Amino acid sequence: MTMPPSADRPNTPLLDTIASPADLKGLSNRQLRQIADELRQETISAVSETGGHLGAGLGVVELTVALHAVFDTPRDRLIWDVSHQSYPHKILTGRRDRIRTLRMKDGLSGFTKRSESAYDPFGAAHSSTSISAALGFTMARDLGGAPDPALGDAIAVIGDGSMSAGMAFEAMNNAGHLKKRMFVILNDNEMSIAPPTGALSSYLSRLYTEAPFHDLKAAAKSAVGFLPPPFQEGAKRAKHMLKHMAMGGTLFEELGFSYLGPIDGHDMEALMSVLRTVHARATGPMLIHVITKKGKGYAPAEGAADRGHATAKFDMVTGKQAKAPSNAPSYTKVFANALIDEGLRDDKIVAVTAAMPDGTGLNLFAERFPKRCFDVGIAEQHGVTFCAGLAAGGMKPFCTLYSTFLQRGYDQVVHDVAIQRLPVRFAIDRAGLVGADGATHAGSFDVAFLANLPGFVVMAAADEAELVHMVATAAAHDDGPIAFRFPRGEGVGVDMPERGTPLEIGKGRMIQTGARVAILSFGTRLAEVMEASEALTARGITPTVADARFAKPLDRDLILQLARDHEALITIEEGAIGGFGSHVAQLLADEGVFDHGLKFRSMVLPDVFIDQSSPADMYATAGMNAADIEHKVLSTLGVAQMGAKRA
Amino acid sequence: MTMPPSADRPNTPLLDTIASPADLKGLSNRQLRQIADELRQETISAVSETGGHLGAGLGVVELTVALHAVFDTPRDRLIWDVSHQSYPHKILTGRRDRIRTLRMKDGLSGFTKRSESAYDPFGAAHSSTSISAALGFTMARDLGGAPDPALGDAIAVIGDGSMSAGMAFEAMNNAGHLKKRMFVILNDNEMSIAPPTGALSSYLSRLYTEAPFHDLKAAAKSAVGFLPPPFQEGAKRAKHMLKHMAMGGTLFEELGFSYLGPIDGHDMEALMSVLRTVHARATGPMLIHVITKKGKGYAPAEGAADRGHATAKFDMVTGKQAKAPSNAPSYTKVFANALIDEGLRDDKIVAVTAAMPDGTGLNLFAERFPKRCFDVGIAEQHGVTFCAGLAAGGMKPFCTLYSTFLQRGYDQVVHDVAIQRLPVRFAIDRAGLVGADGATHAGSFDVAFLANLPGFVVMAAADEAELVHMVATAAAHDDGPIAFRFPRGEGVGVDMPERGTPLEIGKGRMIQTGARVAILSFGTRLAEVMEASEALTARGITPTVADARFAKPLDRDLILQLARDHEALITIEEGAIGGFGSHVAQLLADEGVFDHGLKFRSMVLPDVFIDQSSPADMYATAGMNAADIEHKVLSTLGVAQMGAKRA
Repeated sequence: MTMPPSADRPNTPLLDTIASPADLKGLSNRQLRQIADELRQETISAVSETGGHLGAGLGVVELTVALHAVFDTPRDRLIWDVSHQSYPHKILTGRRDRIRTLRMKDGLSGFTKRSESAYDPFGAAHSSTSISAALGFTMARDLGGAPDPALGDAIAVIGDGSMSAGMAFEAMNNAGHLKKRMFVILNDNEMSIAPPTGALSSYLSRLYTEAPFHDLKAAAKSAVGFLPPPFQEGAKRAKHMLKHMAMGGTLFEELGFSYLGPIDGHDMEALMSVLRTVHARATGPMLIHVITKKGKGYAPAEGAADRGHATAKFDMVTGKQAKAPSNAPSYTKVFANALIDEGLRDDKIVAVTAAMPDGTGLNLFAERFPKRCFDVGIAEQHGVTFCAGLAAGGMKPFCTLYSTFLQRGYDQVVHDVAIQRLPVRFAIDRAGLVGADGATHAGSFDVAFLANLPGFVVMAAADEAELVHMVATAAAHDDGPIAFRFPRGEGVGVDMPERGTPLEIGKGRMIQTGARVAILSFGTRLAEVMEASEALTARGITPTVADARFAKPLDRDLILQLARDHEALITIEEGAIGGFGSHVAQLLADEGVFDHGLKFRSMVLPDVFIDQSSPADMYATAGMNAADIEHKVLSTLGVAQMGAKRA
Repeated sequence: MTMPPSADRPNTPLLDTIASPADLKGLSNRQLRQIADELRQETISAVSETGGHLGAGLGVVELTVALHAVFDTPRDRLIWDVSHQSYPHKILTGRRDRIRTLRMKDGLSGFTKRSESAYDPFGAAHSSTSISAALGFTMARDLGGAPDPALGDAIAVIGDGSMSAGMAFEAMNNAGHLKKRMFVILNDNEMSIAPPTGALSSYLSRLYTEAPFHDLKAAAKSAVGFLPPPFQEGAKRAKHMLKHMAMGGTLFEELGFSYLGPIDGHDMEALMSVLRTVHARATGPMLIHVITKKGKGYAPAEGAADRGHATAKFDMVTGKQAKAPSNAPSYTKVFANALIDEGLRDDKIVAVTAAMPDGTGLNLFAERFPKRCFDVGIAEQHGVTFCAGLAAGGMKPFCTLYSTFLQRGYDQVVHDVAIQRLPVRFAIDRAGLVGADGATHAGSFDVAFLANLPGFVVMAAADEAELVHMVATAAAHDDGPIAFRFPRGEGVGVDMPERGTPLEIGKGRMIQTGARVAILSFGTRLAEVMEASEALTARGITPTVADARFAKPLDRDLILQLARDHEALITIEEGAIGGFGSHVAQLLADEGVFDHGLKFRSMVLPDVFIDQSSPADMYATAGMNAADIEHKVLSTLGVAQMGAKRA
C-alpha cells in the first residue's frame, strides 16, 4: 500500500536516524528541537498524500517528541485522547514506513489502535476516555497486573474540548480520590494565538531544577504574573486568558490533582524541563497544562478557521485541497436545509448538537436561527436530556448526533425520552459504515437499540428526497420520540421535492412489483437493491422491491402481503442484528408465517468490526453490495449461479 | 388501593388544611415550620405502611415546604433529581390520599412521574438528570415554548452524590454558558451531622432583606467564617467541612453559577429568607447549597448506617422492619460470594461498582479485598472504561452494574471494551423486571444491546447455581468481553455447588426431553417453563426443555437439533425484542429452517413500559409466566384450550 517515495519529500536527516523512541534518549534539547521540526515536515508531507487530521498533530509535535524523550514508552503507557493528534506519534514509534497509508484500506488507522503497535496501549477515537484508561493502567500497575511490557507510568494527553465532557470529570474525580502517581497532559489549544510564554517557561525551568516539588506548584501559579500581554491581542483577551488559566488550576486542584502550568507547548526547553521534573518527582495525580496552537508551523492550517482539523489530500506548497467531483449534495447538507425549511415554518423547532455543528450541518441552522441552535459541548448525556426538557417545555427539539455518538446518551434516550414519551426528534447522521474513520465511528447499532424502546418511531432514509420527507415527518410528529437515520456522504442524485411532506407513520412504499422474491429495504441500500434487481431481471427473475421506511412501527400489511405473495422475503439494512430484520422476523413468527414455510433472510452487518476503507469497500466486506444481494436472492431461491462473487 | 385509615395515624391539623401548594402562600414561617413537622410525621407513617425510600424524603421536608411556599408550582418547574426524596412533595401536591399506595400496583410511583401529576414536570429515577431538564425548561420558556401550565422558573434539587456524575457537570457547564435565570438546589447530606448553622442563617437572612444581590454572594461567602465548630465533632472535621464548602462554591462559580451557601436545610427561617431573596432577584444561574440530614427527625433512620435510605414496612415506634420469610439466598448475595471465591484463587480479579456497593453485593468483596474493589461514584461511563484500562493492564475486572445503569456506559462498552476485545467481565444485576422500582429500573435491553457487539459473550443464569458457574466462566474467560445477567430477588432454592466450574462457551444444556414442542429458555424464566411443562404433561404434551445459557455465541447444534426434532420451537427470555430470540431467528433463517416450515415463537418483554408491581405480577402483565407459556405452547400447536388464561 505504501506510496512510491516522492521527489519532494522533506529533508529529514536527524529524524531518519530515529527507529524508535529509545533513540531519542541521548539527544540534546537542541537536537530534539530539530527532530520536532523534521517530524512536523514529515507529518505535513504524509497528510498531503493521504488526507486526514492535520491540525491536531501539528499542534503536538514538540509534546510528542518530549513525552517520548522523557518517558519510557511503551513500558510507560502514553494514551492520546481521541487520537486525531497521533500521527507524529506513529511516525516516531516504528510506523514511519507506513504513515502514507493512513486511513486507507489495510493501512494505518487514523487513530491509535492496540492491534497496530505496542506504543498504542489504548485505542481511541471517541473523546474523553484517556483519563479513565490511564487510571486503569495505574491501578493495574499497583496491583501487580503483569502484561507485556511491564507496567510503568500512565500518561493521558487530552484536549481542552475533551476535558469538558462529563466522562473526563468523572475520571478526574476518581483519580483525585485514589491519589496514585499518574499524569494528565491538558493540551489546551482553544486559544488561537499561542501566548508568548518565553518568560514564564524560562522562569519555570529554572525553578524546576532547583525547588522541591511542592514549591514548584506555587511557583508555577505565581509565574502566571510573569506573562506579558499577548503581542497581537488586546488587554481584554490577556485578562481572560490569565483568569482562565488560574481558574483551571484551581478546578483541577479541587479534584485532587496537582496542577502545573501553563507551559508553552512549542517550547522544547520548557517542555523537557517540566516533564523531566514531574517524571522524577511526582507522587500523586498530576495535571500539566500545556498551551499549543492547532496547525502550528503550517501556514495554510494556521490560517484556516478550523486550523486544518481535517483535510483531503492537498498541495504542500499552496495547501490547496483536492476535491472529488460531486454529483449530489451530501445527506448532511440536505438534512440541514430541510431543517431550516421546517424552522422557517415553525418557530418551536430548535436544534441541539454535541460539539459537532459543522459535521451535522447545524452550523447552517445556527446561522439562520442563532437563538434556536444549541451546541452543548462534548456532552451527549446532557444533550439528550436537555432535549427532553425542551420537549417537555413545549419546544420541538432535533437532537442531532452521529449514530456512534448517540451511544453516549443511550440511558438518557431510554430514561428521559422514551419512558416519558417526550417528542424529541433524533436526527442520526453517519448511520451505517462510514469509511476512513473505521470501526470506531461506524453507526451500526442504533436501529437495534432504539427500535426496541416502547413508543419510539424509527425511520431510515432510502435517498436524499426521502430524508427531506423524514425531517418533515419528525417535525410534525408530536406523540412521542421519533428518529431518522441517514448515511455519511453524498445522496444518489434523485429529484428533490420542493418541500418535505410528512409520511404516514408506519407505512412503507412499493418500489417495483416482481415475482418469486421480495426485497424489503430499510435505508440507503435501496440503490444497491435496484442494481441487483437489474442484474436479476436479466436472469429472468424480477424481484418485488419495497422501501420499509419504518423499522418501528412496522408496516404489518405490507410485510404480510410480501410474505404471502412470494416464495422468499429478504430484508436488508445498514445495521447490526437486532434491528429491522429482527423485528420483521418477530412479526412473521408471531403471525405464524413461518409455520408453513417462507424463505426468509435478513441481511445485516456481519458480526465483526470492519476496518477503515471506502464505504463501498466496507460494504463489500460486509457482503451488502449489489452483487451480494443478487447472490443472496439466487442462493435463497436455489437458482444455480454462474460467476457469482461469493460462495 | 388506599389502606383503611389507621387509629395511630399522626395528628396533623395544619397539614390537613393544605390541599395544594397554593394553600401555603399566606402562612407564616412558624406555620410553615408546623406544616413541615406534620409532613414529616405523615411521611414516616406512610412509609411504615408501604416501605420505600424514607431517609431522603425526611431530609428535605423543610426544603419541600419552603420551595412550594416561595415558588409558584406547577407553573415553576420543580425537578427532584432521582426523586427518592419526593414523597413529602407528593403529599403536598394533591396526592396525600394515595400516599399509602406508594410503589404498589396501580398506586403512586416511588418516583416523580409526568403522568401522575402536573407537579411532576419531569420524571426521574436514574441520577443527575435534573439540571439538564431544568435547563431545557428554562430555554423553552425564553423561546416561547407554551405548554400548559405556562412556563415559569425551573428549579433542580440534586444531591451531592448525583452532582458528582459527569452528566451533572456537563449540564452545569452548559447552563453556566447560557447564563439564564434558573435554580439548582444542591442538597448536601453527605455529612452525617448537620452543622449548627444558626449563626450563619440569621446573619444571611438579615443581609438578604437589605443588600443588593451582588453583595449577598460576597456576604454568603464571608459568612462561612461565622460558622462555629460543630458541637459534636472535632476541629479536623470542621476544617474539612469549611474547606469543602468554600471550594464547592469556587467550583460552581468557575462553571458560571452564582453560589450561595451553605444554608441549614432544616432551618425554615433561613430557607425562606434565602429562597425569597433569590426568587426576587436572581438573573442568571444560581446554585444554593443546602446542608441537610438524611433521615432527619426519625431516630431509627438517623441512627442507621444508611440513614434509612430504603426500608421495608416497619413499626413506627421501634423502627423494626418487617421481613418476608426467605427460602433461598438472593442472586446478589450468591454473586458476591462466588466472586469472593474466585478472588481468593486469583489475585488479578478486581471489582468495580458505580456507587452501588451494597446493591451489587460488592460491599462483601470490598470487606475481603479492600484494595481490589473500586467504587467510582455515579460514573458508569468512567467505570466501564476504567475497567477496560484495568483489563489492558493485565487485571481481570468485574464491572458490576444493574442492567438499567449499564445503559449509561453503553458507548464505553462498544468503543473501549468490544472494539478492543478487552476481557472485561460484566456482572449485570437486576436483569429483567424488578418490581417496586417500576419501569425506570427494568433491565430490559442489555441482551439486545450487548449480543450484537462482535466478540462479546453473553450469558444469563437460569438459577443461583448457574450464576456461580457463570462467575467462574467469566473469571476464566480471557479472550474478549463477557457478560452474565441475573435478576433481582431470591434464587429458586436449588442445591448449590461447592465451587463454580467454567462452562463451555456457547453450549447450552438439555433439561428434559419431550416431543412436539421444544422450549428454549434463556435466564430465570426456566422455573416458569418447568411449571408450564408440568401442566402441559398433564394434558399429554411433554415439551422438550433446554437452557440456552448463552445468547452469544449461540449453541448452533442444540438449536438446529431442537428445530429438527420438533414441530414447534419457542424461545423465552427476560428481555426486549432484539436479543436472544432475535439471534435464534436469524440463525434459523440463515440455515434455511424456515424455508420448509417451523412453528417458531419468541417470547420477549412486550412493547410497553410496565409500571411497578411485584415482579411476578409484572411478568403476568408481560405474559411471561407459567400459564402464559402453557398457553403459548397450546396455541402454537393449535391445541384447543380449556380454561386458558389469555386469548
